[in-house]
This record gives sequence, C-alpha cells and structure tokens, in this order.
Amino acid sequence: MPAAPLTDYSRLCIHTITTKPWSLEQACDYYARAGVTGITVWRDTLEGRDIAAAGRRLTEAGLEIVSLARGGFFPAADGAGRQKALDDNRRCLDEAAALGAPHVVLVCGAVPGLPLAEARQQITDGIAAILPHAHATGVKLAIEPLHPMFADNRSAINTLKQATDVASKFDDFVGVALDTYHTWWDDQLETEIARCGKLGKLFAFHVSDWRTPTVDLLNDRGLMGEGCIPFRQIRGCVEAAGFRGFNEVEIFSNRLWAGDQAAYLLKIREAYLAHV
Amino acid sequence: MPAAPLTDYSRLCIHTITTKPWSLEQACDYYARAGVTGITVWRDTLEGRDIAAAGRRLTEAGLEIVSLARGGFFPAADGAGRQKALDDNRRCLDEAAALGAPHVVLVCGAVPGLPLAEARQQITDGIAAILPHAHATGVKLAIEPLHPMFADNRSAINTLKQATDVASKFDDFVGVALDTYHTWWDDQLETEIARCGKLGKLFAFHVSDWRTPTVDLLNDRGLMGEGCIPFRQIRGCVEAAGFRGFNEVEIFSNRLWAGDQAAYLLKIREAYLAHV
Repeated sequence: MPAAPLTDYSRLCIHTITTKPWSLEQACDYYARAGVTGITVWRDTLEGRDIAAAGRRLTEAGLEIVSLARGGFFPAADGAGRQKALDDNRRCLDEAAALGAPHVVLVCGAVPGLPLAEARQQITDGIAAILPHAHATGVKLAIEPLHPMFADNRSAINTLKQATDVASKFDDFVGVALDTYHTWWDDQLETEIARCGKLGKLFAFHVSDWRTPTVDLLNDRGLMGEGCIPFRQIRGCVEAAGFRGFNEVEIFSNRLWAGDQAAYLLKIREAYLAHV
Repeated sequence: MPAAPLTDYSRLCIHTITTKPWSLEQACDYYARAGVTGITVWRDTLEGRDIAAAGRRLTEAGLEIVSLARGGFFPAADGAGRQKALDDNRRCLDEAAALGAPHVVLVCGAVPGLPLAEARQQITDGIAAILPHAHATGVKLAIEPLHPMFADNRSAINTLKQATDVASKFDDFVGVALDTYHTWWDDQLETEIARCGKLGKLFAFHVSDWRTPTVDLLNDRGLMGEGCIPFRQIRGCVEAAGFRGFNEVEIFSNRLWAGDQAAYLLKIREAYLAHV
C-alpha cells in the first residue's frame, strides 16, 4: 500500500553529495536553516577537517548524522589491491566513529573483467575481514545494491535480494541501504523489502528519481518528481517492513550541481513533501 | 562450463542495425562476401522495398534470415495507444512472413510513469492479443528481456526470469531472445538459461559487449572483446541448455557506426572467433 504523504521534515536527510558544490560547513548551515533534520556525510567533505569537531558542529546545528558514505570497493585484481581496500575500509570505520555516524554505506565494488561471482566472493570476504573493526568501533555496515548498469566497475551486488543474502551471512552489524534509484525496476522489490525488514537488515532508505532520457549513467539522477519512480509505493513497503529511519535524498546530477544550491535546497524540500 | 572457441562462421548472424549506415542491399552483399551465414533484419531497412523480393535476395545470397527486429512496445497510456501497438505488431508479423523470418523479436515496451506491474500486464495481454496472428502467419514471437536501465521507456521485462515466465504463459509460438548485453550482470542468469532451455523457450542468442565507461545508455555498446562480458561462459550455458541457433551480433554504437563499415565487418569476424 502506498505510504501517506509526508507532512514535515522530521525524517528528511540529505547527502552532502547532493549539494556537491557546498563545503561541509555550508551544507551544515544551509540544511539546518532549511529545517532538514538528518545529514549523510560524504568522506570528501571531511578532508582536512578535525572529524570529531565536524561531527559536533553538525549535531550542535540540530542535524542527526545518519551515515558516512562510503566504504566498500572490496574486489581488486590482486591481493595487494584487496588489502589496500581493507585498510581504507577500516579508516572509513574510524572516521565514522569519530564523526558519530552509526553506519557506513558500502558500495561494494567490481572490476571490469573480474568474473562477477569472484567479485561477489571478494565482497563477502572483505566484509568478513572488516567486521571485527566494525564491532570495535561500534559502527555498522550497510550494503547498498547498485543498479545493474554499475556491475562493471562499481558493484557486483545489483539487487536487494543479493544484498540481503550477503548481509544475512553476518550478525546485526551488517545490513542493507536501499536506494530507489538502483532498485525501482526490480519485480522482486516488494517481496525483498519485506524479507529484508523481517530479518532486521533494512538500515537505510535513499531516494532520487530516474529521468527519461537519462543522459549520463552516473550523474544524471533526478530530483523526486522529475522521473518515473513510485516513491510512495516503495516507501509504503519500506515502512510496512518496519523501517522508521530517515528518507535520505541522494542525488548525483551535473545539471543540478550547476545551479544555485540554496534555491535547489528549497526545491528538495518541496519535492520531498510532494513526491516522497 | 565455458564453450569451446568457435572455429568458423556457420553460426554467425549479424543484425542490420549493427552496420546501420548500410542499406539492406549493401548489408546483404557485404555480409555474404564476408562469409556471414545469418542475418537479422531491422524493419527500417525494409522501408520502400518489396519485402518478399528482399527476402529472396538475402536467401539467394546464402544468408539465412534469422529474425525480424522488432515488434513489441505494447504498453500505452490509453486504449487507443495499445490498439495502435497491436496493429503494428500484426503488420510486423506480416512483414516477417513475407520476408521469410521465423520469428519476430519483441522489445516489450514501457511508459514512464505507468506502474511497471501494469506495463507487464499490458505486455502479457498484448502478446495474447497478437498470438492468433502469429499462428496464422506461422511466425513466432521472441521476448527480449532488456537491461534494467531501459525499464522507464523501453521494456518492463528486465530479466531472463521475467521473460521466461511470460513466455511460459503461452504455447510454443512464444519464446525468449537472450542478449548478453542486457543480462550479463544477473546472478540468476545461469539458472534461468537452463530453465528457459528446458522449457523449449530459448529462441535466440544476441551478443555485444559492455564497455567501461559506457557513455551513452542506448548507443555505446562494444564489439565483443571491448568490454567485460564473459561470452564463452554464457554461450556455454546457452548450448548446455540445448540451443543450436545463430550467435547474433547486435551492436548499437555511434562510435562504430561512424567508421568504415567494411573494415568494421572484418573486425566483427575476428572478434567473433576471438571472443564469442
């Protein structure tokens, strides 16, 4: 059943990548002033910062830190590459702990020409390898299934079913970040959302829209309402599965990054109530 | 198990769209001279032709007519649109019969904003509606699952499982056209190829490669070997499932269309033996 319209911003989270031209401090100030209540921080915005101080600043501005994006990219052509990925993921967990983010989003990785079955095994092995560090830092891991058009070099995990299957191999520190953009086409989506929720694995819910035509595979996502994704239908499933977290707006768009970000933020607020 | 390398061109079919700058007559002459043995004809190349004469010309040149591309696009916003699609599909079947093509490839269609579940029902209903005409003309229907990146406006059938499920609702006049480009990412691909073959529904096998980066959703496919698709692995599954038909080269590429088509045809021959 479709969800009822949202009437306030108490569950509105924005990813810093959505307003990429802004520094973390600008995002913090503008989001808080606009009544946004959650923020997912992308690691690039932390460069050169005291991470714990950045976290305090966000919290003091009234923003809940929803997650840190992103870890993952486990598969590599050789052992040295895989070790480098594990080291980076442990650093990512340290950063999340310092920031105060409860989980890290995992874009799991793929390498063109590496068989997908091998990439998937390397992903599972990579998560197993960093899980003790997740426990030690108290930061959880959210596997994000990526759209199949990213199976070549971004993720060999391309459906919610696959993500839930991998998450289910581990304890409650490993779950799933579900993104409408990556999964809306899947005829198994409703069934798999229910299963993921029942297993206690549904950690996060991201929204952005699919535009027709899409002119760039990576950076042509739409603001909600600009495309064809049935957000209320999907959010209805997510909430029926027990999810009570933030609705996170995560939009990669050369077009939207090129405009005035303050005006864009107001449009995000409008689109959130009108379409999510 | 991966298939053994191909050693000759006895199962090499090329889609006329692959060499889009050529007329049907040019494609016929060049393909035959290059030892290509099969041709899938795109309807645009038949415009203004006597279709039966075109079919005879292809056959006399030694080319087996593998299929006619394409019918489908069943879903529409209203009944008039759906009726128009049925009429066009019946014309397509008539053209295939006149040409001498044993089946029509179906790109099933989708309409941005029309719920995918409704689009899928309209597809099933559309196939049911034209099936009597398929019987009357003796031309079969091959449902092609399209990559999920085309779920907005080209097809709501995005996995082999979906295509086989729909085909299984009908008799042996309805099957599946499997394309590596659309399906290589699917972790259920091997299982579903086996099921599709066992049901007698595997009518066609198309090949083209996935490039990294892919710069255009529609027209940036790669020649086999230019990307990351494991053709021998997939062909091995297809043949283990009993398929003995042509390996059809179907490449949409602005880049490859811009070059000399005769030189490109030689590269297709090489790539076919080296990679398929």
